Amino acid sequence: MSLRQDCEFIVQEAIRHVLPGEAVKRALTGKSFSSGRLLLVAAGKAAWSMAHASYEVLGARIDGGIVITKYGHSGGAIGNLTICEAGHPVPDENSFRATERALAMTAHLTAEDTVLFLLSGGGSALFESPAVAPQELQHITAQLLGCGADIVEINTLRKRLSRVKGGRFARHCAPAGVETIVLSDIVGDPLDMIASGPACPDSSTCADAMRIAGKYGLALSEEARSCLQTETPKFLGNVNTVITGSVRELCRGAAAACAARGYEPTLLTDCLTCQAREAGRFLAAVAKTHHGGKKRAFIAGGETVVHVTGRGKGGRNQELALAAAEGIAGLADVAVFSVGSDGTDGPTDAAGGYVDGSTAAVLAAQNVSIDAVLRNNDAYHALALTDGLLITGATGTNVNDVSVVLIG
Amino acid sequence: MSLRQDCEFIVQEAIRHVLPGEAVKRALTGKSFSSGRLLLVAAGKAAWSMAHASYEVLGARIDGGIVITKYGHSGGAIGNLTICEAGHPVPDENSFRATERALAMTAHLTAEDTVLFLLSGGGSALFESPAVAPQELQHITAQLLGCGADIVEINTLRKRLSRVKGGRFARHCAPAGVETIVLSDIVGDPLDMIASGPACPDSSTCADAMRIAGKYGLALSEEARSCLQTETPKFLGNVNTVITGSVRELCRGAAAACAARGYEPTLLTDCLTCQAREAGRFLAAVAKTHHGGKKRAFIAGGETVVHVTGRGKGGRNQELALAAAEGIAGLADVAVFSVGSDGTDGPTDAAGGYVDGSTAAVLAAQNVSIDAVLRNNDAYHALALTDGLLITGATGTNVNDVSVVLIG
Repeated sequence: MSLRQDCEFIVQEAIRHVLPGEAVKRALTGKSFSSGRLLLVAAGKAAWSMAHASYEVLGARIDGGIVITKYGHSGGAIGNLTICEAGHPVPDENSFRATERALAMTAHLTAEDTVLFLLSGGGSALFESPAVAPQELQHITAQLLGCGADIVEINTLRKRLSRVKGGRFARHCAPAGVETIVLSDIVGDPLDMIASGPACPDSSTCADAMRIAGKYGLALSEEARSCLQTETPKFLGNVNTVITGSVRELCRGAAAACAARGYEPTLLTDCLTCQAREAGRFLAAVAKTHHGGKKRAFIAGGETVVHVTGRGKGGRNQELALAAAEGIAGLADVAVFSVGSDGTDGPTDAAGGYVDGSTAAVLAAQNVSIDAVLRNNDAYHALALTDGLLITGATGTNVNDVSVVLIG
Repeated sequence: MSLRQDCEFIVQEAIRHVLPGEAVKRALTGKSFSSGRLLLVAAGKAAWSMAHASYEVLGARIDGGIVITKYGHSGGAIGNLTICEAGHPVPDENSFRATERALAMTAHLTAEDTVLFLLSGGGSALFESPAVAPQELQHITAQLLGCGADIVEINTLRKRLSRVKGGRFARHCAPAGVETIVLSDIVGDPLDMIASGPACPDSSTCADAMRIAGKYGLALSEEARSCLQTETPKFLGNVNTVITGSVRELCRGAAAACAARGYEPTLLTDCLTCQAREAGRFLAAVAKTHHGGKKRAFIAGGETVVHVTGRGKGGRNQELALAAAEGIAGLADVAVFSVGSDGTDGPTDAAGGYVDGSTAAVLAAQNVSIDAVLRNNDAYHALALTDGLLITGATGTNVNDVSVVLIG
């Protein structure tokens, strides 16, 4: 088996491990529920797959429920569940209407009942019931964005202007238990950020909210002002949360696949957020230090960033891989690759990039300067010359990226 | 013991491990020499300490020799050795004269004799005997620099314009054995680059040299042209080389010190050359992933780079540490530190920087923005506010830097 073939296998297995269906089935294995009713509420871009997998496992045990996903993201009827499509990234009337239905379904439950709450990326727009008029919510958000408020400040206010965010959905379900299964698309899995935390206690306070409103001199209706002064839940005794699909799981899947091919895996990190090209250089340095010995793999998950300075074509994973090529040049036993779990990397048809010890020489022979390519953010075209593009197509999941150093 | 105290201990022990004397003694332990004469030739900024340590171990077994170091870098007489000081970084008459003496001492040796050759950073200027007039050597070097030739091209020519570089010193000593002990100041320990490799076979060829001369249209005397067409040694049967002080050894020293304090050490890399601040962010991500468990240390050695965009005060190690502060904010069991083994980091009196989970909050409380500090390359002043400057004073060695993540 070549390093390139091992790469293909590892990418495929890592992504398979975090497909919404697989992840949900893993989370439901061995789980039991109270004797009462079991209602399913799924929201997010992966809601349909997550609900479908739950239905495969639980079938008629599910007494009813609702699936709210993005337009074009549902795959048809699932048992007795209501399937709704709605607006994303901007919530629309269908988002609000579907969320109202979810609230109605989960009202007046008893302590014997359970809400199986399936959350994935996009849930913030798809699962929303504003506590003020939607127009004012939009206006306040626009003011915050316009004056440079950061995401924590924006969320502190938005949680209070919503009837489901900031833990309020879980409190609405009480005394029923809320079993939350999360497919996380944010590095570090901050539960209060994923869909603004409908089932997560809120650590921000009304005082924070009023301070932010004052700091930016926000124009607020009396109704909105009153919302900001209404506290969010600080403790939720009825919630149990499992993060089943996440970049951590993506790394685990990659590690297992590496081990299956005889590479001893080492997880470096699952929350990498530095510059893509510098991460590539760091990983190349790791490879240079450890190559020449036993078969090993080093794994780094996360979501790196690219500072666009050129007009080329590429993505963060392709840029990371290409930047590693110089450092591992000439090392016959080394490959570095990086891939986005959603199957897309930047505005390209590739999911990521692959380089090995021969890449730099192949490019040099074609008079391609890696430095110049990186300056132009054009990794896609350089990798196309070296058979270095990883193409998976859309995968149906999104739990960030994984980068792997293979020493074979 | 606090993380800060463990940091001080680890820094001290890591540097002690690569002091020239310690390193040379380690290399000489158990070494035996042929029955003939034993001559010592030491060149570089650490030549005096390396020779002194050799004399402590071998004493009267040394039949004579010469020590060539930078002005102000000798520490007095050592037994029967000749001590010379000379020009660095630009070689001068004293460099040439001392090197001539070394060549004379090591002429006409037999296969029973041994040259103990002690090499350290700065050896390229201090150990030189030009094969053309020094003025022409200078002129050719100036032409190469002026037309943007890279370091490999420059060295390809300079090795042929020298009577000692590119393996020629070792060939001069033949049939005597040359036992080379190297204190490496270049990441990756490229033996043909350290002092231009007086005892290292040269992989470049005359054809390479003539191609480079043609590419840049160099003006060359007949004498110089003839030098470029004279081949350097491609194989040296009489040389044995030990790299005893190097960033790898610095990392080993750090790992041993971490282990002594109960941290399980993992070497990430010993050839890190990426941007300092991104390396700091990468290491913070490693810390975030692994904190909360057993006591561990992650070690990265190398020489990172800083792109100066501001007018503040700092160095690459301080910048790396400060950049890690945000990522580890709030983690009570994590520290990240980075230090230059020579005891100086940038134009400051600090050797490096230390941050822990409290650093970001301490700076925020004083209204210091880490991002703004980094933009101004002013890590020194920020770290001064958090007791984060590591100050060792000049150490007498120089084998690059080591960065450590401590999880305690």
